Amino acid sequence: MEKVCVLGAGSWGTALAMVLAENGHDTLLWTHRTDQAEEINNQHTNRKYLPETVLPTNLYATSDIAKAVAHSETIIVAVPTKAIREVCEKMCVTLDKKILFVHVSKGIEPDTLKRISEILEESLPAEFVEEVVVLSGPSHAEEVVLHHPTTVTAACANIEAAEKVQDLFMNQYFRVYTSKDVIGVEIGGALKNVIALAAGISDGLNYGDNAKAALITRGLAEISRLGVEMGGNPFTFSGLSGMGDLIVTCTSVHSRNWRAGNLLGQGMKLPEVLDQMGMVVEGVRTTKAAYQLAEKYDVAMPITAELYSVLFNNIEPKIAVDTLMMRMKKPEIDDMIY
Amino acid sequence: MEKVCVLGAGSWGTALAMVLAENGHDTLLWTHRTDQAEEINNQHTNRKYLPETVLPTNLYATSDIAKAVAHSETIIVAVPTKAIREVCEKMCVTLDKKILFVHVSKGIEPDTLKRISEILEESLPAEFVEEVVVLSGPSHAEEVVLHHPTTVTAACANIEAAEKVQDLFMNQYFRVYTSKDVIGVEIGGALKNVIALAAGISDGLNYGDNAKAALITRGLAEISRLGVEMGGNPFTFSGLSGMGDLIVTCTSVHSRNWRAGNLLGQGMKLPEVLDQMGMVVEGVRTTKAAYQLAEKYDVAMPITAELYSVLFNNIEPKIAVDTLMMRMKKPEIDDMIY
Repeated sequence: MEKVCVLGAGSWGTALAMVLAENGHDTLLWTHRTDQAEEINNQHTNRKYLPETVLPTNLYATSDIAKAVAHSETIIVAVPTKAIREVCEKMCVTLDKKILFVHVSKGIEPDTLKRISEILEESLPAEFVEEVVVLSGPSHAEEVVLHHPTTVTAACANIEAAEKVQDLFMNQYFRVYTSKDVIGVEIGGALKNVIALAAGISDGLNYGDNAKAALITRGLAEISRLGVEMGGNPFTFSGLSGMGDLIVTCTSVHSRNWRAGNLLGQGMKLPEVLDQMGMVVEGVRTTKAAYQLAEKYDVAMPITAELYSVLFNNIEPKIAVDTLMMRMKKPEIDDMIY
Repeated sequence: MEKVCVLGAGSWGTALAMVLAENGHDTLLWTHRTDQAEEINNQHTNRKYLPETVLPTNLYATSDIAKAVAHSETIIVAVPTKAIREVCEKMCVTLDKKILFVHVSKGIEPDTLKRISEILEESLPAEFVEEVVVLSGPSHAEEVVLHHPTTVTAACANIEAAEKVQDLFMNQYFRVYTSKDVIGVEIGGALKNVIALAAGISDGLNYGDNAKAALITRGLAEISRLGVEMGGNPFTFSGLSGMGDLIVTCTSVHSRNWRAGNLLGQGMKLPEVLDQMGMVVEGVRTTKAAYQLAEKYDVAMPITAELYSVLFNNIEPKIAVDTLMMRMKKPEIDDMIY
C-alpha cells in the first residue's frame, strides 16, 4: 500500500483516484474548492464531473495542498495545463522530501512551447523530484469509473519509475504498459486534442465518417512528423498514447474537444462555444502551441494550420475543411513524410 | 470520357459506378441478376443495397458480362472475394483486348492465401491485362452517394496506371491518392475486417470506447507486423487504406463486419449472425486466412488468434476479449514490434 495523492478533482483526476483507492492505496484527492472536498468526503460523490458515480469510502479529499503533499510518496498531477505552474508554486513551499511525480495533463504551453513534464521539472525544486512520469492513453474517465477495460502507457526515461507507476495503477480493468519515450507520449496526448477539434468540426458540418477517418489519419501523420522532429520515437505515435487516444477522442461523445469542434462546425462562434462548454477545452490552447511548434521545427501541419485559422483568424470552418480535402493530388506516402 | 464497367452491383460497386457516371464516363454496371439490372435501368434505383439513392440516368446496367467486357477499356471488379474466380472465368471467354483492371474487393483467399490482385493475375490471360490497380480507403458507400468528402488510395507498382485510375475517379468529393504499395494496401484493406469483427464483439459486450480504441490500436500493430513481413511499406499501414479504413470500419454503424461482431458479442452464434446479416461478411473468411498467414510468416497476431478461436473453435467472446486485455505487462514498443 502506497501513500498517494491526486491533485485536481476533475473527471479524470477523480477517476484515477478511484482506481488507486480501489487498488488499496492510501489515497487523498486535492481540490482547491472546499465545498467539493466536503461533498467527496461526506456524500462520496463528485456530481459536477462524474454525476452518476459513487466514490469508494476509502477515498478522502482535502482542499489543503500542504496536507496533500505531506501525505504523499507519489503525487498525480491532474489539473488543467493552465493551472500547473500555479499548483507547483503552492507545492514548492511545502515540499520537504523526494516525491515521485506523475502527470496526466494533455497540453503544450503556448509561447514557451514547453511540454508538461518540462513545466514540472522547471517549477519544482530538483532535490524533491524523484522522477516525472507521464500517464496517457485512450481513457475516458466515464468508462474507467464503470470498470470498463482501459489500457494506457506510463512513460519515463527511467523505466523503473514507469514500472512503479504501472504497479500503482494496474488492476483487472486498468492495464498499464511502460515506455521510455516521454516526448512521444506527451506530444501525442497534447496534439490529439487539435485533431479532435477538427474532427468535431467535420462532424458538425455533417461530412460523415469517411471524411473524419481521413482527418484522423492525416492528423496522426502530422502529429508524428512533428513528434519525431522533436525527438519522439515513431512507434509511440502508433501506440495507445498516440493513435489510441486520438481515436477515442475523435469518435467518442465523451470528448469535450470533439464537442467544442462540433459546435464550431454547426456555426457557433468560439467565445459562445467556450461559454457553453463550461469546462476547459485544452485543444484551443494547444492549437496555438502546435501552430508555433510547426513553425519552430519547420514541419508541415496542414490540419493544425487550418484549425488555427478557424480559431484565431475567423476563417469559416467549412472553408477550412474543404481546403484540407482539396489538397493537390499526389502520392500518399510522400505526403505523409513531408 | 472513358468507357468503363463495374462488375458487381452491391453497395460499393454501385456507389463507384455513380462516381464514374457523374464524372461523365460511359459507365456500365454488371450484375448477375437480371431483375436488378432492369431495376437500375428502368427505375434508377438499387433498393436492396442503397435504398435511398437515386442513380444517375446516364448509368446503365446489364446482366450480360460479354457486353460489359466488350464495352470497356477499364473494368472495376467489385464482387465479393469468394466470387472473383468465377467472374474471371466468365470474363476469360470474352476478353479480346488489353484492359486496365481495378479491384476494390477486400479479402484474402483462405488456404491459397492469395491477395485479390494475385487472384486476378492468375485467373486472367496476361496478354489482356494492362495492369491491376487496387483502390482502397475509408469509404462507406452510403456516404459516397451523398457526396460526402471521401479520400482513398489507388495503388499499382506501375504508378502511371494508378494515376490513370486517380484521373477516372477524382472529383470534388472523391479524392484519390496514388501509391506503389499494392501489398500494403491489399493487406490493410483485408485485415481491417478482422479487427472490425473484434471491435464489434467488444462493443457487443458493452466494453466501451477505451477498450475499442485499444483493440484498434493493437489491431493495426499486428496488421502492420504481418504486412511488413509480406513486403508492404510500413507507412502504408498508417495511411488511408490502413489506419483510415480500419477506423471507419470499427467505428461506423454502416460496417457490416462490425455489426456481425456486435451480434456475436451480444451472445448470438455465428450461423445465426450470418443468417441475420443477409450480406457477405468478408471478415469471417479473412480471419481464417489471416490466422494462416500469421502461421506462415511466423508473426504474433494475438487479436486474430483470439477471434479465430471465437469463430471456429467456439470460444466465448467475453473470454477471448478478456484474454487480450489481460496480456502480460511489458514495454509497449516491444509488444508492438514483436
